[in-house]
Amino acid sequence: MRAVQITEFGGPEVVAVREVPEPRPGPGQVLLDVERCGVNFADTLLRENGYIVAAALPLVPGGEVVGRTTDGRRLAAMIESGGYAEKAVVSEEFAFPVPDEVDAVTAVALLAQGLTAWWLINHTGRVRPGESVVVHAAAGGVGSLAVQLAKMSGAGRVIATASTPEKRELALSLGADAAVDPAVEDLTTALREANGGGPVDVVLEMTGGRVTGQSIAALAPFGRLAFYGMASMVEPEKVSPRELQRRSATVSGFWLMDAFTRPEVLAKAYAELTARVIAGELSVVRGGDYPMSEVRRVHEALRGRRTSGKLVIDPRR
Amino acid sequence: MRAVQITEFGGPEVVAVREVPEPRPGPGQVLLDVERCGVNFADTLLRENGYIVAAALPLVPGGEVVGRTTDGRRLAAMIESGGYAEKAVVSEEFAFPVPDEVDAVTAVALLAQGLTAWWLINHTGRVRPGESVVVHAAAGGVGSLAVQLAKMSGAGRVIATASTPEKRELALSLGADAAVDPAVEDLTTALREANGGGPVDVVLEMTGGRVTGQSIAALAPFGRLAFYGMASMVEPEKVSPRELQRRSATVSGFWLMDAFTRPEVLAKAYAELTARVIAGELSVVRGGDYPMSEVRRVHEALRGRRTSGKLVIDPRR
Repeated sequence: MRAVQITEFGGPEVVAVREVPEPRPGPGQVLLDVERCGVNFADTLLRENGYIVAAALPLVPGGEVVGRTTDGRRLAAMIESGGYAEKAVVSEEFAFPVPDEVDAVTAVALLAQGLTAWWLINHTGRVRPGESVVVHAAAGGVGSLAVQLAKMSGAGRVIATASTPEKRELALSLGADAAVDPAVEDLTTALREANGGGPVDVVLEMTGGRVTGQSIAALAPFGRLAFYGMASMVEPEKVSPRELQRRSATVSGFWLMDAFTRPEVLAKAYAELTARVIAGELSVVRGGDYPMSEVRRVHEALRGRRTSGKLVIDPRR
Repeated sequence: MRAVQITEFGGPEVVAVREVPEPRPGPGQVLLDVERCGVNFADTLLRENGYIVAAALPLVPGGEVVGRTTDGRRLAAMIESGGYAEKAVVSEEFAFPVPDEVDAVTAVALLAQGLTAWWLINHTGRVRPGESVVVHAAAGGVGSLAVQLAKMSGAGRVIATASTPEKRELALSLGADAAVDPAVEDLTTALREANGGGPVDVVLEMTGGRVTGQSIAALAPFGRLAFYGMASMVEPEKVSPRELQRRSATVSGFWLMDAFTRPEVLAKAYAELTARVIAGELSVVRGGDYPMSEVRRVHEALRGRRTSGKLVIDPRR
């Protein structure tokens, strides 16, 4: 079968389509004919061996697929690797039914991005009715869903940040009450001003660098910051527990892989997300639907931060 | 009336009983004949002007009292200051009814300590059934109540730490499943071993110094550390958000004063705590019931960390 196989770590040039053997499902696994595979920022880190976990070569990247089993079931699944391929082996435990009303791009977007946004709002951030929520990178895959889910969960003011006027416009169109340029010098004051002058209750942060610390400084008593990524590649300043105590504030990390210890929660979340899509309450921002043969270009665009919304590849093209 | 008034910041020698004018209640306030006043570690910091908030002189210390109103109601109350006195003004909003079955020492212990322990277990730590809980300083005012409340809330293994064999014995008698000496070189490994080899879900931490970081290192995925004090007076190491992300871990600060924005939650918590005392499910460790004239000695013992359990003074003696 055709697949993207990496045989050495490096830049976008190491991402190439090759002929590789078809994978075989083991116990509890099933083989999918891949309809679409998601392309994520984390894939570009993995390609350089710079992700949270070390990778082994050779490697077929791709952690989220939608496709059909040989017995005709349409499933979306998170996998460790192997998604950039015509066929992929998935674990039944982490494969969720996809109703036919949900298109393939959306089905993929509801996996890593959708489940992350859902977990951040419902578990890590525990957003309560009336609370203010800052969503950084609000035009991105997770951010665009988090803005909508925050509003649905009864949040008060939702404040989006995004790096360009177009992305901020997009965040507002998804329901954000205000949109802020995260490049401003004093982001703490900008976030408070966007919240009517007061400190904020919840921050969903995936940027790193100074954005993290300046966001923590904007937290209200009992405020929570969920740190779930570091797109700037710059480590944020470390956090003083004593400073957190002064405002009874919380800093949480979130890595979706840890949620895989709770498959029943993920299955419930995925079902809720698809139901909201079918009800017209939740929509996915499409970043592009590419043939697998153009995957290198997609990696370049992701790392250049020139994309908005969900990017997928079609292994049949 | 007689009260302890501080006119300059300093060591235990600045704590002296004097004759001072009786305070007058303002709107929403009521005057109590003080039956007992709690003496807390934070009072000794305040005395040196080393607490989270700055203090103004002259100052009558004492933040928790139990006593009777002129119309005969028995109330326990948290106050900003003024408790080390024969009479104290309290805000009705933060004064909770005390049934006659609850003795005065217990009624005071259920204020700062009881409400803190309750909040840490139910809100900050969100202990869920079956989860393992580490309680540092488990023989102290908050710790001894937290051990019991953790068990009552369905925690799995409760691991106490305390600095002497006697204190560890006390923690075990309160229901802890294991007790660890926090002075061991590798506290991370000691905590895991006390938890049957696995990482821990929740840590309630009020020590500071290396205990904080070594406890964070013992956290399981989705583990939470609640930092609510720094009895060692040594700042803990700062925490890397990126490290938290690797285990989806959480570090929260907690300062009881922030909970005073939610008087209805505190009233519910206090009522629950007194009900558990009357039902025989919860008991307070008594550290000593002293005449107010001996308050200096109590401060010295607290700072020397030679005490276990609740310390109160009786302003009538």
